[in-house]
Amino acid sequence: MKEKLSIIKIGGNIIEDESSLNDFLKLFSNLEGKKILVHGGGKRATHIASKLGVESKMVNGRRITDAETLEVITMVYGGLVNKNVVAKLQALGTDAIGLTGADINSIQSDKRPVKEIDYGFVGDVKKVASNSIDKLIKAHFTPVFCAITHDGNGQLLNTNADTITSQVAVGMSDIYETSIYYCFELNGVLEDFNDKNSVIKNINSKDYKALLSEGIIVDGMIPKLDNCFDALNNGVYKVHIGNTSMLTKENDNFTTITL
Amino acid sequence: MKEKLSIIKIGGNIIEDESSLNDFLKLFSNLEGKKILVHGGGKRATHIASKLGVESKMVNGRRITDAETLEVITMVYGGLVNKNVVAKLQALGTDAIGLTGADINSIQSDKRPVKEIDYGFVGDVKKVASNSIDKLIKAHFTPVFCAITHDGNGQLLNTNADTITSQVAVGMSDIYETSIYYCFELNGVLEDFNDKNSVIKNINSKDYKALLSEGIIVDGMIPKLDNCFDALNNGVYKVHIGNTSMLTKENDNFTTITL
Repeated sequence: MKEKLSIIKIGGNIIEDESSLNDFLKLFSNLEGKKILVHGGGKRATHIASKLGVESKMVNGRRITDAETLEVITMVYGGLVNKNVVAKLQALGTDAIGLTGADINSIQSDKRPVKEIDYGFVGDVKKVASNSIDKLIKAHFTPVFCAITHDGNGQLLNTNADTITSQVAVGMSDIYETSIYYCFELNGVLEDFNDKNSVIKNINSKDYKALLSEGIIVDGMIPKLDNCFDALNNGVYKVHIGNTSMLTKENDNFTTITL
Repeated sequence: MKEKLSIIKIGGNIIEDESSLNDFLKLFSNLEGKKILVHGGGKRATHIASKLGVESKMVNGRRITDAETLEVITMVYGGLVNKNVVAKLQALGTDAIGLTGADINSIQSDKRPVKEIDYGFVGDVKKVASNSIDKLIKAHFTPVFCAITHDGNGQLLNTNADTITSQVAVGMSDIYETSIYYCFELNGVLEDFNDKNSVIKNINSKDYKALLSEGIIVDGMIPKLDNCFDALNNGVYKVHIGNTSMLTKENDNFTTITL
């Protein structure tokens, strides 16, 4: 039987709020077993970009990562956020190591091809070096990934943190029984968006089809759940979605997704 | 007999110039044997700080690292510079991993005590986790340190890159025969500052005393060389000072310092 590995993703809402971040890092530190953290960067990058006079460029509602924006992202996600998270985890006794996909060549991406939109320096994950990442885990280090990968030719690339999470989980499934925990602001996937306690506790692929056809799962939840099923179809054991307290044993009010 | 380990330090003059940096990284990549890179950040941090409206604060000619300046340093050294160097090294086939002292708790510092001057968030190195760093080296990764350490209580600290170099070299001397290569803009320690080819090829502690009393070594070179002899007195095998081409076999015109 494979050993368990938990991959936890936190988003901007936690990163941006010092007290939420500190609370989360305590939960993460106390989580037993082998684990990996993936973080986004949130609005901090936008804020610093605007201070530096770097405009946020949008095409058809999608953000474009030009060279200047990539520099800001590298500074904020790879430096400011990642290294402060690592320092805080060390203070909590977790032997963290901050990584981009360039470090130990852990996550290689392809620059997204230009079709209708040129997204700029954005990467689509191509290869996760699970054996290299496992060397860190076996050495009792806890990897902390920010949302940056590289193309193997010296170019860093901005990469969606949810995708990094699922791709790293898929890659590590060769070695471990991997579970993903997507922490976000809601308690889980909701049956009724206006009732924050209407958490759907379990969703499998059959349930998902029904929930889609009934119009219960809509909008932004669809790509999120598609991404979850993609991970499950590629070897990930379970995906959990909920607020950060799902990392504790006290809270069982979150969504668990299985095939 | 201990295995050899080379610790190479580059300063701002190389970091700031894309073509010098690329040339250096090729030399570094081609250098045989186990190795560690330490880089400063140069004027890029000052430039970005000024764009962000963060003033450079000086007291008695010494730079003060306040909270805002530390943020900029963390962004620029820990993010922008470090991660681009790592991506470039990966493209050259060197399996690099970028680190601050917080990562794997590699370098712990004490915040410099306030006496006449409050230097702010500046760290004096206390402890190098040589065994943890060696786990990376044994896994065939090449550590790339930026000039940031931490206090173990969640606080990152700005730390002199020359000091990081010598302290890491001293720490690693438990395990390896360590040699330091300080790369800078001159060819080595010069007998005549106006003749760039007047390199003093070998300096031992006896020579150093003579050079000091004869007034040949003056000004900024004195703390640099004191730092070298401090490293040698604490277990480092050899210290080399010169331009980056001393990493090749073609150039033997640089300074080697021994006890």
